[in-house]
Amino acid sequence: MPLLVVGSVAIDNVETPHERRDDLLGGSATHFSYAASFFTGVRLVGVVGADWPAKHTELLKSRGIDTTGLSVVGDGKTFTWTGRYHDNMNDRDTVAVELNVFGEFNPVLPEDYRQAKYVFLANGVPTVQMDVLSQVPGRRLAVADTMDLWINTAREDLDRLLNQLDGLVLNDSEAKLLTGTENLVVAGRQILEMGPKFVIIKKGEHGAMFFSEHETYVMPAFPTENVVDPTGAGDSFAGGMMGYLSEQDDFDSATLKTAMAYGTLTASFNVEGFGLERMQKITREDIERRMQDYRRMLSF
Amino acid sequence: MPLLVVGSVAIDNVETPHERRDDLLGGSATHFSYAASFFTGVRLVGVVGADWPAKHTELLKSRGIDTTGLSVVGDGKTFTWTGRYHDNMNDRDTVAVELNVFGEFNPVLPEDYRQAKYVFLANGVPTVQMDVLSQVPGRRLAVADTMDLWINTAREDLDRLLNQLDGLVLNDSEAKLLTGTENLVVAGRQILEMGPKFVIIKKGEHGAMFFSEHETYVMPAFPTENVVDPTGAGDSFAGGMMGYLSEQDDFDSATLKTAMAYGTLTASFNVEGFGLERMQKITREDIERRMQDYRRMLSF
Repeated sequence: MPLLVVGSVAIDNVETPHERRDDLLGGSATHFSYAASFFTGVRLVGVVGADWPAKHTELLKSRGIDTTGLSVVGDGKTFTWTGRYHDNMNDRDTVAVELNVFGEFNPVLPEDYRQAKYVFLANGVPTVQMDVLSQVPGRRLAVADTMDLWINTAREDLDRLLNQLDGLVLNDSEAKLLTGTENLVVAGRQILEMGPKFVIIKKGEHGAMFFSEHETYVMPAFPTENVVDPTGAGDSFAGGMMGYLSEQDDFDSATLKTAMAYGTLTASFNVEGFGLERMQKITREDIERRMQDYRRMLSF
Repeated sequence: MPLLVVGSVAIDNVETPHERRDDLLGGSATHFSYAASFFTGVRLVGVVGADWPAKHTELLKSRGIDTTGLSVVGDGKTFTWTGRYHDNMNDRDTVAVELNVFGEFNPVLPEDYRQAKYVFLANGVPTVQMDVLSQVPGRRLAVADTMDLWINTAREDLDRLLNQLDGLVLNDSEAKLLTGTENLVVAGRQILEMGPKFVIIKKGEHGAMFFSEHETYVMPAFPTENVVDPTGAGDSFAGGMMGYLSEQDDFDSATLKTAMAYGTLTASFNVEGFGLERMQKITREDIERRMQDYRRMLSF
């Protein structure tokens, strides 16, 4: 079952305590698509400028990702993000952001994309996210990400969006900001009351929490010594999770839990290299092998 | 198999964003003993002053804890700790510490305590911890806790202690301080090289990590909405874990993992009340019920 994702496609410059790398293929929809491509066909909607290297599109296509929905604005520049990670590799400073063509992004879905059943709205303006939803009226599952910026500046729009979603994925600091509580279990339950049928709070190196009417659980991150670049980990998590749900064409409680585990593992590979470098070296079999380790780790 | 614990017995004053409570029964050895008492007989070694309320000793005795090793210094005062928790209920400031009789603590073990097979050295001066070890030459398993103070001021003693231990339990910030690395997986592996056969890094609300020569795993904390007072959570974790190992009289890889889970659960109850208040209301059956939930949470 193909999976639709709408979000940013970007050029990233990343500085860690160990290395600086420029001109990396980045963006939320990119990391999401790549991770999801191990599980299902992906239809990507995004926008880039004239500076966008054709090789990036080729890389996505080579993974079976449909890039029909990737618009190229001939007189524009691609969204660029430059970030610097702290010693703990968890906190980071945004050194520079140039929204460029992404600032005017008003996605119009190609006709065949509108039949999508599984939809992921990567972080973006809530009104734009809602506009996308209106273009996929026959969807079965709609999940979105958000960020502090919209919680602070577009709360009413975000509240309306929350009422249209099946699932919301956000990180721990955003969950605290959205609810005004420091306890993540309380926060997760409060966000459920805002509309979504399930809520996933990402805790970075500490894993992710899941909340639905009848379930609350935590899945730890897969422990890795080799954190090279955490950029896109959250989107890779969402990509692995949504990719698996689309593959199974199901989102009952048990499938959602297994999907959380796949998301955890795709994210664990993503952080082991800059940009998508590590992801380009793995196969579905590598994910399955790590899944065996992960299941062993959690059973006693 | 009885379990020996040596550590602080204290009077705590705790302030949270919601409430302030004074004269709570506290101390590392106290929280440890109480948690362990759900699993095994405990022999407690500690020191208190003339101000120590007899009802506290009675409470410990009522749990089957042997308090023969609890010395009362007639002309001294009990160790007192006053702390204030931040809004996140994870960070805290120590407002006041009066070591009192604990400052001169030189534990001499009662004769029958010296046959102990399972030994836990709660946080204390490394030379004192080593002196205790020398009094239990026939031990099967010795595990210790430590803290930033000793890492900073008694590093050589601590290094010697590490070579005599089977296991070390410490929290995430201490593991980073001890190794100078920010990645906890790397830190855990490096501490293994300092001597202990296994290392457990406690991450508070994010659970605990386990490291041995052949195993690395993470166990998430049990998610609770109801964090009333986190004081003693780490000691309750260690108590539940060591209590289960003593009960099983085994510490192979599988038993250690189940013990980590029991530690996680005893800690999850401990934080649901001030001091030992919540712990006084539960039974082994409550722990087993939560264990069923925890196993369900981690299986997919």
